[in-house]
Amino acid sequence: MSGEAPERPEPARSRSQRRIDALAKLRSQIDLWVASADELGGAYLVPLSYYWDDSTLTIATPRASRTARNLVRAGWARVALGPTRDVVIIEGPLEAIPIGADARLEDAHAQATGFDPRTLAEQYVYLQITPHNIQAWREANELEDRQLMRRGAWLD
Amino acid sequence: MSGEAPERPEPARSRSQRRIDALAKLRSQIDLWVASADELGGAYLVPLSYYWDDSTLTIATPRASRTARNLVRAGWARVALGPTRDVVIIEGPLEAIPIGADARLEDAHAQATGFDPRTLAEQYVYLQITPHNIQAWREANELEDRQLMRRGAWLD
Repeated sequence: MSGEAPERPEPARSRSQRRIDALAKLRSQIDLWVASADELGGAYLVPLSYYWDDSTLTIATPRASRTARNLVRAGWARVALGPTRDVVIIEGPLEAIPIGADARLEDAHAQATGFDPRTLAEQYVYLQITPHNIQAWREANELEDRQLMRRGAWLD
Repeated sequence: MSGEAPERPEPARSRSQRRIDALAKLRSQIDLWVASADELGGAYLVPLSYYWDDSTLTIATPRASRTARNLVRAGWARVALGPTRDVVIIEGPLEAIPIGADARLEDAHAQATGFDPRTLAEQYVYLQITPHNIQAWREANELEDRQLMRRGAWLD
């Protein structure tokens, strides 16, 4: 956003192409950026690994961490896949799933992220995000039409 | 964080090496991730271009944007340079600088980011962040000693 244009900027992608690209990125990447905030409006930001099951994102973080406390309080997450010149930003409600509640999800998360919170001494919680809004853009010429999903519905 | 270990993980870097690497990254990158929150605790996250002058980070964003309103309200920013397996996270107080107040800064920002808010119809504001806390890590083996600067002082 607001960034330097490449020497030969690619033409802006259609919404349907961005949807294809965003889903491919969700399937192929391991980490995303998670923004959260406390009830006083203090913002927080960390990278975390995720599992994407083709309709929801699941992250795991210590139950006592700032991210877990902030997200559970808000019941809503805003996360981003990079890099900054090929972003996918996802917002949606989240559900906290305690360890032991969904073995299939826990196995899939461990497989996707390479770490298994069930094996750790610290108590973790799974946070499952259902995308309601998705945006995707590369350079400034893609800021228009960056909204791919609104209130859970694809726009293309 | 909490991610899959590479096949042959690099040994964890020393704090002094991370300081060198973090400063090199600040000088060589163009974009970062900016987290912010409103007074109700609603988190926001966008990528923005920045200018690094070897002691402060300057970003520019529309004065009416969520990011500008959130950051000016909070007087504090948390930003991150990626990628997610080589992060530098910076927190610190910020100062809002209106357009026209510092021509040298405005020139340097335009040069570094490739866009010049002075030329745009929409009213922008510069936000200058002074690092108070800096963290840097690559893989899980670098989570220890990730704090490089605390309250403005380098720890190495």
